[in-house]
Amino acid sequence: MKDLSEKTIGTQRIYEGNIFTVRKDEAQMPDGLIAEREVVEHRGGVGIALEDEDGKFFMVTQYRYAQKCVTLEFPAGKKEVGEDPLTTAKREIAEETGYEGTDWFYLGKMFPTPAYDSEVIDLYYAKKGAFIGQHLDEDENLNVSRYSLREIEDMITDGKIPDAKTMGMALLIRTNKERGRI
Amino acid sequence: MKDLSEKTIGTQRIYEGNIFTVRKDEAQMPDGLIAEREVVEHRGGVGIALEDEDGKFFMVTQYRYAQKCVTLEFPAGKKEVGEDPLTTAKREIAEETGYEGTDWFYLGKMFPTPAYDSEVIDLYYAKKGAFIGQHLDEDENLNVSRYSLREIEDMITDGKIPDAKTMGMALLIRTNKERGRI
Repeated sequence: MKDLSEKTIGTQRIYEGNIFTVRKDEAQMPDGLIAEREVVEHRGGVGIALEDEDGKFFMVTQYRYAQKCVTLEFPAGKKEVGEDPLTTAKREIAEETGYEGTDWFYLGKMFPTPAYDSEVIDLYYAKKGAFIGQHLDEDENLNVSRYSLREIEDMITDGKIPDAKTMGMALLIRTNKERGRI
Repeated sequence: MKDLSEKTIGTQRIYEGNIFTVRKDEAQMPDGLIAEREVVEHRGGVGIALEDEDGKFFMVTQYRYAQKCVTLEFPAGKKEVGEDPLTTAKREIAEETGYEGTDWFYLGKMFPTPAYDSEVIDLYYAKKGAFIGQHLDEDENLNVSRYSLREIEDMITDGKIPDAKTMGMALLIRTNKERGRI
């Protein structure tokens, strides 16, 4: 197999934002060619599939400003700087749904946009635990609902859930259940 | 259900790149609160699941600079300005694998990063057609291989395929096959 790796030979900071930063690199390809590589840097987040005692999963409806529409997704959130992703997951699921999770299981990591974005999302499954009360950020508005995996798969297949994280997590829930892992 | 939409009341251009642009908006939330919204703008792309006569799908191994690693993914590509996504899909699958597609089926759209990125990926399924020869861009290096859907699902479940687009497409192939659509 060919060597495919690219070496960074120069970098320029473009933007330091609150949610992401941007840099522009010069990269040397295996054949020596120099290419420009623009990169969005994001500190990463988590997605959580919380299943209740009836086999239904908590989902959130929220306005996604960059897409200018309302979406239905598994609960998710951004890591604090240096935070362990399981800590983020436990905090976010309680904040967004009001419930703690138990029996945490790591579904895997996801690269939402590997072509130009460093973001990694760590994906978790948990069972519904105690109710401790919803607590949203000041600039966060969302509605909570519950659906079976079959209902979620149907909505994805019919184009009603375009969120990448939710699609990938639905697959991982199904394959891990088929393999007896959750 | 609560109104969740946010109105743009100000916008500032931050960066005009080749792959994406960045803007910073002021948005008014339903309760009147003003929030900052940083947005990466990307003109969108396609992902293609090309199935051969043995039920195997073409996949590409490539270096993903933003993630600093090699990934295994379904073939994909960026739309040209104003391009119809099916045109992009037909061009990209031939360039990356050397094969034309036939019996094109639209799997749906995906928002890889709806929190802060406007990118939409249109997802397609096609059957392998005539061999017309691989033709890669100057700064593109990749290896082509073929796997069954079961092998792809196993690799996803075992954490070997973190690409969001590939995870979502694997789910859509399975559910559409179960429903007799492809």
